[in-house]
Amino acid sequence: SNTDPKPQFKEKYFPQIMDHFNFNSMGNGTYEQRYLITDEYWKKGSGPIFFYTGNEGDIWEFALNSGFITELAAQQRALVIFAEHRYYGKSLPFGQDSFNIPEVGLLTVEQALADYAIMITELKQQLGASACPVIVFGGSYGGMLSVYMRLRYPNIVAGALAASAPILSTAGMGESKQFFQDVTSVVCHCKSTVIFHHYSNARRLLLHVCPTSDYGRIQSAFSLCKTPSSYKDIHQLNGLLRNAFTLMAMLDYPYSTHFMGSMPANPVKVACDTMLGGADLLHALKDTAGIVYNSTGDLTCFDLYTLYVECADPTGCGLGFNSLAWDYQACTEIEMCYESNNVSDMFPLMPFTEKQREQYCSKRWGVIPRPGWLKTQFWGDALSTASNIIFSNGDLDPWANGGVRKSLSSSLIAINISEGAHHLDLREANDADPASVIKARKMESDTIAQWVKMERKCLQRGF
Amino acid sequence: SNTDPKPQFKEKYFPQIMDHFNFNSMGNGTYEQRYLITDEYWKKGSGPIFFYTGNEGDIWEFALNSGFITELAAQQRALVIFAEHRYYGKSLPFGQDSFNIPEVGLLTVEQALADYAIMITELKQQLGASACPVIVFGGSYGGMLSVYMRLRYPNIVAGALAASAPILSTAGMGESKQFFQDVTSVVCHCKSTVIFHHYSNARRLLLHVCPTSDYGRIQSAFSLCKTPSSYKDIHQLNGLLRNAFTLMAMLDYPYSTHFMGSMPANPVKVACDTMLGGADLLHALKDTAGIVYNSTGDLTCFDLYTLYVECADPTGCGLGFNSLAWDYQACTEIEMCYESNNVSDMFPLMPFTEKQREQYCSKRWGVIPRPGWLKTQFWGDALSTASNIIFSNGDLDPWANGGVRKSLSSSLIAINISEGAHHLDLREANDADPASVIKARKMESDTIAQWVKMERKCLQRGF
Repeated sequence: SNTDPKPQFKEKYFPQIMDHFNFNSMGNGTYEQRYLITDEYWKKGSGPIFFYTGNEGDIWEFALNSGFITELAAQQRALVIFAEHRYYGKSLPFGQDSFNIPEVGLLTVEQALADYAIMITELKQQLGASACPVIVFGGSYGGMLSVYMRLRYPNIVAGALAASAPILSTAGMGESKQFFQDVTSVVCHCKSTVIFHHYSNARRLLLHVCPTSDYGRIQSAFSLCKTPSSYKDIHQLNGLLRNAFTLMAMLDYPYSTHFMGSMPANPVKVACDTMLGGADLLHALKDTAGIVYNSTGDLTCFDLYTLYVECADPTGCGLGFNSLAWDYQACTEIEMCYESNNVSDMFPLMPFTEKQREQYCSKRWGVIPRPGWLKTQFWGDALSTASNIIFSNGDLDPWANGGVRKSLSSSLIAINISEGAHHLDLREANDADPASVIKARKMESDTIAQWVKMERKCLQRGF
Repeated sequence: SNTDPKPQFKEKYFPQIMDHFNFNSMGNGTYEQRYLITDEYWKKGSGPIFFYTGNEGDIWEFALNSGFITELAAQQRALVIFAEHRYYGKSLPFGQDSFNIPEVGLLTVEQALADYAIMITELKQQLGASACPVIVFGGSYGGMLSVYMRLRYPNIVAGALAASAPILSTAGMGESKQFFQDVTSVVCHCKSTVIFHHYSNARRLLLHVCPTSDYGRIQSAFSLCKTPSSYKDIHQLNGLLRNAFTLMAMLDYPYSTHFMGSMPANPVKVACDTMLGGADLLHALKDTAGIVYNSTGDLTCFDLYTLYVECADPTGCGLGFNSLAWDYQACTEIEMCYESNNVSDMFPLMPFTEKQREQYCSKRWGVIPRPGWLKTQFWGDALSTASNIIFSNGDLDPWANGGVRKSLSSSLIAINISEGAHHLDLREANDADPASVIKARKMESDTIAQWVKMERKCLQRGF
């Protein structure tokens, strides 16, 4: 419904240091880091810089789904930059070899942050923007990076809008059951608990048919391309189904979107209707998964192992994002030991312990995760010395309760969006927007304007 | 003069992650990091932890020359830990091979800070000290590390006493002539400018004799073990002489010390007397250098290339410290492009440009320094968001003006010690102490007690 012309981003490449933390490593040179830039709204030389700290995907995906940032730039006359995270999209330090061992070793949060710090510093010089306050933006893992930029580089970044950033749970400070419990409550929210029972029944059916090895019935009910032949395949099917509900909960926007795949408007409601509409429970479950995996209706059968990729992130890898790189991050610094237990959630019991993670990661990437490292590096909840951060979260989003939900001080502000899914506030304005997100964006906009003003004073004082 | 019994440090080793920033590097394991610890004064489980962030040398050297910290620990019932910096002393990640390429690549400021963060976190757990506020201490480069610990890990460190920490000049924010200008003014301070003229004359003589290749005369005047045979040797002699004055200025303590070699009480005064006492200028200059290089009088001749090692730090490498490791650090992150120019200082023209540094470092270590990196990483002078740091500096110390000399806020406190040399305040109390250092230590002690109290409140509030 927003018919304003979109800004024309220019796609550029920045010669970036490959290894910021080792002067004698194999990464003894530069790689081409992609970024998108538009100065269409910029008050040249004095307007602020809005810098999106790219996360686990092609940077265009985020630029095209974060219209709030450009709308705000138009209001506040800002330069806009979307920077691509190393090892994603076209920003591959070693090209085709980037995911070999040891080349993949330069994929860390710290390297990514240093990339952004160096890029901001140099681009400011090149663009005659040394007096321009920089505000960072990010959604999800990108929001975590925005927080970290403000913690780590307050010399460079005046403030951060971190939308739906689960900074606590990914630092090992959450409960393993939280995530799928929250997916369940979003889905159940739909029509009393009808869907919960339906899904529960369907699942029980699944478990029931497995031992009898009635794999043919499962294949036909789920239109699988291959007949399952072992419990491993059934486990994979369970993962795929759980992932479908996860994505619909995360992306439960009030209008259709093309972000991490394609979603209809209000996908959770569509899922409910689908579940209730089918006579055969397994079949209804298949159609519900199809909302996510077969939005075009083009697939004639489901291939369990291409539609869903099991990895070190139990909330799912793949689906338009670079699953290899994210898997590696989940195997090293980012902790995501979420489990479903079928008690506090509606999903099958699918444990994912630190030990399982260690075994998987050691085998897959030759690495041992380091629990506690992210908390040590990025402060966990010991944020009392930080300032100028907005933590926004949507109540519909299963990631929300892994983040900061209460303001910690007058400049560490939590904004909770009652009708919001995963970083809805970063999306462009839409007629279907609920009141809560409109209000949140207004608060964000006012706060950011204030930060810019304060920073300008500091820069003038030369403090 | 201080006759209190010294604390008995226990020497221990901590199994430390070799590479904090690459999960797939060659450093895929742990090394033994040395630390010294005493709980002699500690109020177990609740007293604060005083943690010395070890710098470029054997950790015993710092523990034995930082008596203020243990004296303060006795007052404030603190646990004391002196941690050794990786690649120094006995904390060699790759043993004998540590200075090979690429093994040396794990020697960075960031790795050292991460070592300390991990060590503090784990030792607190092991010692039942999770409720104990941590204060970091350091002198010189160790003081820089203390500042960085508070900037980088305020979740772990409640405050920092940074004594004589040149955080600005080493981040490329100083003037290249500052250092030797300040050495000169300390030396000149002695007896009007007599010594300046003497030295100037002597130097002119040197320059004068060089072209005529009167190398025999220089050898005999300076008791050199070998006859100089080229300008390179004369250049080395100039470096050695400049270094002697540098060390006497830095270590101009009011009593004799054994730190970075042996010094008499008031070495600058001794140097003056020596310069003025000799009839032959060159000979007097040799005796002056002997205060530093031949304190025992045992040397029968001076070997130019063992007494002084030219390296990427123009203020000198070697002399009891690990010159290899420090050279590498000066070739990578730490910027020290100090020069003497014979206009604003009394030394021969000895330029050291960024280009020279690059050539040397590339040849010696296969690295290209990255000017600006330290400023990006550790904020340069953009410290407005920081808190709880004392920057102490002695007016006699040529390093002082590379640091923070004015308080930046009520919790970023500069303390200037008018009669102090290089981190005199960290040394144990001595009857010869000037009033200014006694006053400084009192302020430091009060401020630290306040930080500990504040942090205790925060921990109780669970913020």
